Amino acid sequence: MNESLISQRTLGVTFTNDSAVVRVWAPLAEAVSLRICHQDLVIPLQNDGAYWQTTTSQLKPGDTYTFILNNTTERPDPASLSQPESVHGPSQAVDTAQFVWTDSTWNNLPLESYLLYELHTGTFTPEGTFAGIEAKLDYFVELGINAIEIMPVAQFPGTRNWGYDGVCPYAVQNSYGGAAGLQRLVDACHRKGLAVVLDVVYNHMGPEGNYFADYGPYFTNKHRTPWGDALNFDDNYSDSVRRYFLENVLMWFRDFHIDALRLDAVHAIHDESELHILREIKQYVDQFMQETGRQYYLIIESDQNETRFIQPIASDGYGMDAQWNDEFHHALRVTAGGERSGYYADYDGIRHLAKSYRDAYVYDGTYMPRRAKIVGKPTGSHPGQQFVVFSQNHDQIGNRMLGERPSQLVSFSMQKLMAGAVMSSPYLPMLFMGEEWGELNPFLYFVSHSDPELIEAVRQGRKKEFAAFQTSVEAPDPQAAQTFERSRLRWERLTQEPHQTLFRYYQTLLSLRKKSPLRHPNRESVAVVMDDARQTLTLIRHHPNDAPIVC
Amino acid sequence: MNESLISQRTLGVTFTNDSAVVRVWAPLAEAVSLRICHQDLVIPLQNDGAYWQTTTSQLKPGDTYTFILNNTTERPDPASLSQPESVHGPSQAVDTAQFVWTDSTWNNLPLESYLLYELHTGTFTPEGTFAGIEAKLDYFVELGINAIEIMPVAQFPGTRNWGYDGVCPYAVQNSYGGAAGLQRLVDACHRKGLAVVLDVVYNHMGPEGNYFADYGPYFTNKHRTPWGDALNFDDNYSDSVRRYFLENVLMWFRDFHIDALRLDAVHAIHDESELHILREIKQYVDQFMQETGRQYYLIIESDQNETRFIQPIASDGYGMDAQWNDEFHHALRVTAGGERSGYYADYDGIRHLAKSYRDAYVYDGTYMPRRAKIVGKPTGSHPGQQFVVFSQNHDQIGNRMLGERPSQLVSFSMQKLMAGAVMSSPYLPMLFMGEEWGELNPFLYFVSHSDPELIEAVRQGRKKEFAAFQTSVEAPDPQAAQTFERSRLRWERLTQEPHQTLFRYYQTLLSLRKKSPLRHPNRESVAVVMDDARQTLTLIRHHPNDAPIVC
Repeated sequence: MNESLISQRTLGVTFTNDSAVVRVWAPLAEAVSLRICHQDLVIPLQNDGAYWQTTTSQLKPGDTYTFILNNTTERPDPASLSQPESVHGPSQAVDTAQFVWTDSTWNNLPLESYLLYELHTGTFTPEGTFAGIEAKLDYFVELGINAIEIMPVAQFPGTRNWGYDGVCPYAVQNSYGGAAGLQRLVDACHRKGLAVVLDVVYNHMGPEGNYFADYGPYFTNKHRTPWGDALNFDDNYSDSVRRYFLENVLMWFRDFHIDALRLDAVHAIHDESELHILREIKQYVDQFMQETGRQYYLIIESDQNETRFIQPIASDGYGMDAQWNDEFHHALRVTAGGERSGYYADYDGIRHLAKSYRDAYVYDGTYMPRRAKIVGKPTGSHPGQQFVVFSQNHDQIGNRMLGERPSQLVSFSMQKLMAGAVMSSPYLPMLFMGEEWGELNPFLYFVSHSDPELIEAVRQGRKKEFAAFQTSVEAPDPQAAQTFERSRLRWERLTQEPHQTLFRYYQTLLSLRKKSPLRHPNRESVAVVMDDARQTLTLIRHHPNDAPIVC
Repeated sequence: MNESLISQRTLGVTFTNDSAVVRVWAPLAEAVSLRICHQDLVIPLQNDGAYWQTTTSQLKPGDTYTFILNNTTERPDPASLSQPESVHGPSQAVDTAQFVWTDSTWNNLPLESYLLYELHTGTFTPEGTFAGIEAKLDYFVELGINAIEIMPVAQFPGTRNWGYDGVCPYAVQNSYGGAAGLQRLVDACHRKGLAVVLDVVYNHMGPEGNYFADYGPYFTNKHRTPWGDALNFDDNYSDSVRRYFLENVLMWFRDFHIDALRLDAVHAIHDESELHILREIKQYVDQFMQETGRQYYLIIESDQNETRFIQPIASDGYGMDAQWNDEFHHALRVTAGGERSGYYADYDGIRHLAKSYRDAYVYDGTYMPRRAKIVGKPTGSHPGQQFVVFSQNHDQIGNRMLGERPSQLVSFSMQKLMAGAVMSSPYLPMLFMGEEWGELNPFLYFVSHSDPELIEAVRQGRKKEFAAFQTSVEAPDPQAAQTFERSRLRWERLTQEPHQTLFRYYQTLLSLRKKSPLRHPNRESVAVVMDDARQTLTLIRHHPNDAPIVC
C-alpha cells in the first residue's frame, strides 16, 4: 500500500500553501508541459519516472490549464477537477480545501438503516442542478428516506447524460454546479441527517472527450467490455491506472464527504491480478477509515451472484459492503405481471421472488438458461444489509425503448404492492426518484454529444437494440433535447391524485420500516410462505424485541 | 463436481460392450447427425439439452465419421481421438481400451526426483515418430534422465509443427503414430522406469482446421489472447467448454497413462470465475487420484510469478504441483553473456541468478521495467520441486530468428557451466533434446499449413517479428520442409568430439545429482555466496544425511 495516497490527492493539481503541485502520468511521453491559459504561460514538467510534475506559484485556484504532450498535443488533465467548457476544453484548477464544511457533527448512518433514493441530477428538478436537489432536502425528510444516491456526475459531453459517458472521473459536471456545488449539497444533506451515495464508473470511459490514450496505456486489449477495450487493471503499466482509480475513491470520501460509493457494473471491470482492484480499493478505504475514524461504504453493482465480492477481506473476499440485487427486482417484476422477455425470461415470478426473499440471489449455484451455465454461489450467512433491492431503477426503466415506469405498466394497487414488497424485505430498500408519487413521465435514454458521427451511431445503436420489438412506435431520439425534457420529474403531480395518495402510502411504509422489526435487514428473521396455487406469498418478519409482522 | 466424468470420457465416441456411445456439444444447433463414412450412413442424434447423442452398434473402432450440423455443415468431431487425414478430414473412432497395458507395476516417480528431458517428436529422431522415441529409451536411461516431456501432440495441419497449432486436443497427431502409438510409447517408458510428461495447450487453438465456432461458443470476445478471442472459460456457455478441457485432462491420465501434464502458457488462459479453471482441473485430478490410488502431476508454464497458481487447494490456491521458472533461465543466460535485448533486458546477470537460486522468482514483488509495474509474489516456503529450471528449451531457442542453441552461442566451457548451474539448483532440472551433446543444428520455427493465405500470414508475421534486428540474414521460411529438416537432431554427433565429451559430462552431472544432496530440491539447503567484483557465485548445498557440496 502506498500510504502517501491516503492523506491527499497526488494526481492533477493540488494546492499547498501558495503553490500548486502539478502531476500527470505519461509514461511514454518525451516531454510534457503545463500551459496556464489566461497567461498563455508554458511550464515544462520534470520527469520523475513515469510521472511528470512541477510545483508552481503561477497556477491559482480557478485558473484554466492544459497539458502539452511532446510539444504538440494539447489536452485537458486526466485528473481534472473541473471542465468549465466541458470535455474538450481546458481544465480548471480547484482547491477543494476552500470549501468550509459545517458537517463536523455528522456521522455516517449504520449501513443496515440505509433507506436509499436514487436520483438523476439533471432531471430530478426543473433546475437540473445540485442546488435544485438541495432545495428538496426537506422533501426527503418528509418522505422518510435517509440516503440519496446520485447517478454519476463525472464530466460528460454537453448537459444531458445519464452520467455513464463521463470521461473525467475527477471532475464534477459543470452544468450540475461543479465540485463546489457537490460539496455544498453533501454538506447540506449531512446537516439534514441524510447520507450521500455517489455512483462512480470504473469499468469504462465515455466515447467523446476520451483523451486517455494520448497519456498512456489506460486501456488494454487483453479484455473487452461492451464499450470496447477494457480499462487496464492487470496488463503492463496497470499499477498507475490502478492508482488513478484508488485516488479517485479516496477523493470522494476525503474531499467531498461522500458517505458511500456505488460502483457501476463491476462485472465489466476485468482484473486477473492476484490482488483484485476491488480488494485493493477496500484495503485503501479501510486504511483511510482507520486514520480518520470515520465510516464509508462501498456498494457494487454486479450480475455475477458471487459472494467473493461481498466477502470480508479477512475471509479472502473483496470486502465490498453491499451489492445491488437485480434478481429480486426481476422476480418481483415478473410476479407483478407483464414481463417475460429479455432478461426477465430466466425468472418465473412468485417462486423466484420467494427464493430471493430467502436467499437473496435467485441463481445461487443453479443453471441459468439465458447464460447456459451454472450461475452464482449461495449467500449463506451474508447479512441482509449486503443487498440493495428495488422495484425499479434508472436502468430497469430507461433500458426500455419508451422508458416506461411501473406507474405506466401496472395498476395502482400493484404499484403499492411492489413498494410493500421492497420495503418489507430483509434487504436495503431503494426508490427511484418519482416512484413515490407514481410519476408518469418516462425516464428515457438521453445524450448530448457534439460529434455528429457519434450521435448517429448512438441513434442507430438504440434503434437496433429495439428492432426486435417490431413495433410501429419509433425509439425516441437520444440526442433530442425533448427526450431529456420528457424525462424530467413533474413535481406538480404531488398535489394531484392518485399521486398524493401514493406518496402518503410511501411515507407510511417508510415510517413503518423504521419503527417495526422491518428496520433490521435480518435474513434469519424472515419466514416465507408461498401458495403457488393461489399465487400468494406471505412474509413473516420478527425480531427478538418486537412483535412479528406479517406482510 | 460431475463425478460421472471421472471414470470415463463422455464426449466424442466411447465404446461399451458392442456399442458406440456418441456425444457432441452443439447448444445452438437445430439438428445434428452422425455420418459413418464407409457406409455413408447418416444417423440423427437426439438432443439432450445442449448435447446431442446416440448409442449405435453401426460405428466400430477404426471407422471414420463426421457430424452434420443443421443438415448442411459436415465437420470432424471436436473430441475426435484420431484424424487419419489430418485436421480437415473425417474423425476416426478409437477404442482406447483395446491397448493392452503392461505397466501395472509402474508407480509415478516422486515429483522431487524428476529429471526432465523436453523433446519434439517430429525432429527428435530421423523417423519423427513415437516409435522413433521408443527406440531411444535405453539412451535416456544411459544419459540418466527419468522423465521425458513431449511437446504437444494434438492433431495439427500437415506433418511439421511444434504442436501449439493443434486443433484437436483429444486426437494424437496421425503422423507421429496416433493414439495407439502414444499408448505404446508410454507403456514402454514405464517399463524402463521413465515417467512421461505431456505438453497440452488450453489457452488457444490453432488457426487451421479450427471448426469449433460451428459447434458452439468455445471462444469469447470478453478476453483476448495473442492468438485472438480467448477460449471461453467464464462467459455464457462456459460450463461446457470447461467440461471439454476437464475431460481432456482426465483422458491423458486415465486412457494414456501420462504421468504429468505441462499446461502451456496459463497466463493466456483467461478466467474470472470464482472457481478458476486450473483449480477445477486440480479438483478433478485429486478426485481421480483418490479413486485410482495413483499419482499424477500438473505443471504449468506461467509468466505471472504469482504463487496462487502453485499454492495448494487447501490454502485457496489453484493447486498446481509445479511451474516452469523462465526467470532462472533468463538470469542464467544473461550471466553466461551475450544476451541483453528483448525480455533479457529485465535481467542483470549474476545478481539475478543468485536471487533466483535463493527465491526462485527474480521479480517477486518488485518493479519490472519492461512491464512497467510491480510483478510477482515472494515464493516463501514453496519447495524447490515446484520450480522447473533449464538453460534452454524449445521456446528460448526457437523464438530466436535463427533458432540457435547455446552450443552455437557460448563456449564449450560455458555450456558445461550452464549445465552445472541447472543441475546444482534446488529445483527440478530440465534438458532440451540434444543439449546433452551440444547439438549444433538449430531448432527453428516450422509449420506445414495448407491454407495459402495463412502460410503467407505466418511468413510475414515471422519476418515482421525480426525486422528490428536489421540483419542482412533472412528469417528462415517456417513453411519450408528444409526449415523442419534443419531442426532435426543429428545423432551421429554423439560419436564425435567434443559432443561425446559433453555427453559424458551430462551423464556425470545427472549421476551426481541423483547420488548427492543435490537430489533433494530443498531450498533451505542452499547457501548462495555472490562475489560481484569477481563475478562469481558459490552455491553450497547440503542435506542432513550427506556431506555438503560446493558448486
